[in-house]
Amino acid sequence: MLAVAVEEARAGLAEGGIPIGAALFGPDGEVLGRGHNRRVQDGDPSMHAETAAFRAAGRLRGYGRTTMVTTLSPCWYCSGLVRQFGIGRVVVGEARTFTGGHDWLTANGVAVTVLDDPTCVRLMEDFITARPELWFEDIGE
Amino acid sequence: MLAVAVEEARAGLAEGGIPIGAALFGPDGEVLGRGHNRRVQDGDPSMHAETAAFRAAGRLRGYGRTTMVTTLSPCWYCSGLVRQFGIGRVVVGEARTFTGGHDWLTANGVAVTVLDDPTCVRLMEDFITARPELWFEDIGE
Repeated sequence: MLAVAVEEARAGLAEGGIPIGAALFGPDGEVLGRGHNRRVQDGDPSMHAETAAFRAAGRLRGYGRTTMVTTLSPCWYCSGLVRQFGIGRVVVGEARTFTGGHDWLTANGVAVTVLDDPTCVRLMEDFITARPELWFEDIGE
Repeated sequence: MLAVAVEEARAGLAEGGIPIGAALFGPDGEVLGRGHNRRVQDGDPSMHAETAAFRAAGRLRGYGRTTMVTTLSPCWYCSGLVRQFGIGRVVVGEARTFTGGHDWLTANGVAVTVLDDPTCVRLMEDFITARPELWFEDIGE
């Protein structure tokens, strides 16, 4: 599942964007939607990786048996998305370069797994070193 | 400021959509972006009123002196948006028909004003009565 999110992150990087990717999976492991951060590509600050994957999945009822897989710990905006729509499970590639609201999600009943994946860490470390201004813009700092 | 958000909510209703509107204002009261819920219109579950207004404002640095005005208490998703991007102030038309995360925002240093505006209450009461399935879909219930 993480491989799909990493593919999305790399696609975003190749487009000159912020390398964060995500995918929403259904109960049988099928991809419902996938996407990556689109701040640069669309000039759209509202399209984080998780929101892009959620949007791509279209209108659904009942997210309890879905899993959001993301290369990076979800920020408060994306954590709020998970909580509001009752997404049952979140898999986080890494939370080393940025820690958002994943502990808050755990406290609110979401099953959260943090993988500490070295590929995900390297993607973000390299990006933050190369484009710090873009990274801090994306998290509102 | 609320009048702009109400105009947006009414525009959404006229399009067959969910009547929630929002606008993001700058420090001098200028409109930076405005929008309304677009679940029905675009088949896009990620476009709540607040995220639509945020998107319409484009890429910005520093939201501390901006004000998000919304006809309805922001859900967790939209509350997370406000917290992540450090939007300094939120004006809520009403929190009677739905209560999202506005108390959580207050606890996290956001200046929140709840107006309990009868026009906003009526818009949502009428809508929830007319289209309950659409309303519950929009809040993931």
